[in-house]
Amino acid sequence: MIRIAIDVMGGDFGPDVAIPGAAKALERHNDVTFLLYGQKSKCDPILAQYPALREKSVFHDCEVSVSMDEKPSQALRRGRYVSSMWRAIEAVKLGEADVAVSAGNTGALMAMAKFCLRTMARVERPAIAGIWPTLKGESIVLDIGATIGADSQQLLDFALMGGAMARALFDIDRPTVGLLNVGVEEVKGQEEVREAGRLIREADLATIDYRGFVEGDDIGKGTVDVVVTEGFTGNIALKAAEGTARQITTLLREAISRSFFAKIGYILAKSAFDVLREKMDPRKVNGGVFLGLNGIVIKSHGGTDAIGFASAVDVGYDMVHNGLTAKIENDLKIYHARRLPPPAPEALVADEE
Amino acid sequence: MIRIAIDVMGGDFGPDVAIPGAAKALERHNDVTFLLYGQKSKCDPILAQYPALREKSVFHDCEVSVSMDEKPSQALRRGRYVSSMWRAIEAVKLGEADVAVSAGNTGALMAMAKFCLRTMARVERPAIAGIWPTLKGESIVLDIGATIGADSQQLLDFALMGGAMARALFDIDRPTVGLLNVGVEEVKGQEEVREAGRLIREADLATIDYRGFVEGDDIGKGTVDVVVTEGFTGNIALKAAEGTARQITTLLREAISRSFFAKIGYILAKSAFDVLREKMDPRKVNGGVFLGLNGIVIKSHGGTDAIGFASAVDVGYDMVHNGLTAKIENDLKIYHARRLPPPAPEALVADEE
Repeated sequence: MIRIAIDVMGGDFGPDVAIPGAAKALERHNDVTFLLYGQKSKCDPILAQYPALREKSVFHDCEVSVSMDEKPSQALRRGRYVSSMWRAIEAVKLGEADVAVSAGNTGALMAMAKFCLRTMARVERPAIAGIWPTLKGESIVLDIGATIGADSQQLLDFALMGGAMARALFDIDRPTVGLLNVGVEEVKGQEEVREAGRLIREADLATIDYRGFVEGDDIGKGTVDVVVTEGFTGNIALKAAEGTARQITTLLREAISRSFFAKIGYILAKSAFDVLREKMDPRKVNGGVFLGLNGIVIKSHGGTDAIGFASAVDVGYDMVHNGLTAKIENDLKIYHARRLPPPAPEALVADEE
Repeated sequence: MIRIAIDVMGGDFGPDVAIPGAAKALERHNDVTFLLYGQKSKCDPILAQYPALREKSVFHDCEVSVSMDEKPSQALRRGRYVSSMWRAIEAVKLGEADVAVSAGNTGALMAMAKFCLRTMARVERPAIAGIWPTLKGESIVLDIGATIGADSQQLLDFALMGGAMARALFDIDRPTVGLLNVGVEEVKGQEEVREAGRLIREADLATIDYRGFVEGDDIGKGTVDVVVTEGFTGNIALKAAEGTARQITTLLREAISRSFFAKIGYILAKSAFDVLREKMDPRKVNGGVFLGLNGIVIKSHGGTDAIGFASAVDVGYDMVHNGLTAKIENDLKIYHARRLPPPAPEALVADEE
């Protein structure tokens, strides 16, 4: 049985999306139970419409909800211990749930998750991994916003954790991994990326197949299973790509609506548009996975609908089902066991004893 | 008369694209002459097919061509003073041409342009500005690959130069400018961006209308006329967006080819697809503008065709026609004249005298 804790109040629509979303996910999975955290008075009437979900869940009344525009520090001050967001995460910490899902604001969610679950031993900073639709299927891109300006060792950690996630999500033995870089040769300032490339190559990890640098357009091509970058660039690349997809859809819709024949054509070609929509549907790849914490937290898009929220719950389910945390811990252990001890004098002395 | 120097050997196809491209641009502009730099034996037969162009141009034979995979340092060593790329740029320096256009490799072109033209007084590092199709028309995005990891003062320079370019290109008095940032509040490491925001606001520039931070998806929306970021993020955002556009086109083509009715529909809706293709055509917005040098250099996509190369020539034409360099110099002068002297002790003493 997989136990999923849900911050019902998170996101632009709170329980109006989270409850039907969880209900939808439940239809796909027989082996789940839910712990729902939210304001009882607001949730009860909605939950009443989903008896199957109500039967499989335990509701926890939380008076405090974190709002979408609250700053992380403010959210922590106001919502620690008491908010629906905190309590969903805490359920993972206490071992009452296997994963927490929230559509709440990313900054607050990450701050609470870090504070509550703590970063894994030997991981310096967490990452958020996104699932990106590509020409070959799907790839994982990380970090998409948790760690701004990662150094080379952190990028190696991301490669390792992203690889573990790819194994959990795509069921492949040795996912291919690329470091996001620019093609321009005349370059100063990306020493971290070059250095990370060197570190990853030298580490010769058994769990990933490192393929070197990739460029921005390689993401959509699906050149590698896992694309590694720091959070500033990752977040902007993701949003630039989302923006382009929306832009093309809008332009096409406008162009079609302007001509009678185009409208007829659209109806005839609808199957093709449906395939495209299905493949590029952002709701289908909803669910950013927080990596590097002692527990799994899934961030759903704040503005998504029930279908999107259900996808985020699915991602959480898959991550638990396929043992993401154990995989990451295992990979970290192997990497660090093979690593040379740091050149601190005490360590050298201790080694000689 | 606008005099355009062309590195005919640059790009994946050299004179096969550059010569017909220049000829196409000539059809649109009566008031241009060309200085063509290339290998005479290779160019002569092609040029013979474009008598109108041949009449309006002076050909300069150059034995050395910079190849597409040459490293900047290598290109400089081998091609300085003698290559078609160098000599096209040098024509600008010598005042024989108003602008140089090349489809050669970006790193080498930037290295040669910097070496030959030098950076403008009071500009620390140059930028490459790209033209990005948006829902509202076009925006300028810079830097897309010249300066990796710009600091706050450099970002301010970019805002100022991008603003000047927007005035030259779009014919607006006071273009809107945004700094590319991530929406996540929980953030460390983007101090340069925040600091740049503060600097730009304080500078209270008459030539631009600073609108604060924008996110990745604001680029495609056309939220601002000029989007400012450092070269690593800018390059990756641009390529991620291009990759997404190609991905959608490919998926749609595949989906349409799979169904008979969809094929018919496509034919009926062709006018709509043509509008879309026209609006998103990367060839129409081809031409990265090097900003911050003592002279104008335009970088065309290396893999483009004659239509694309002609667009790059057009961009060069517009920049000269609308006085880009004078606009940038003017804006820099105004900004620096109003700026407080740096708080060096000598300056403070001088102030008290």
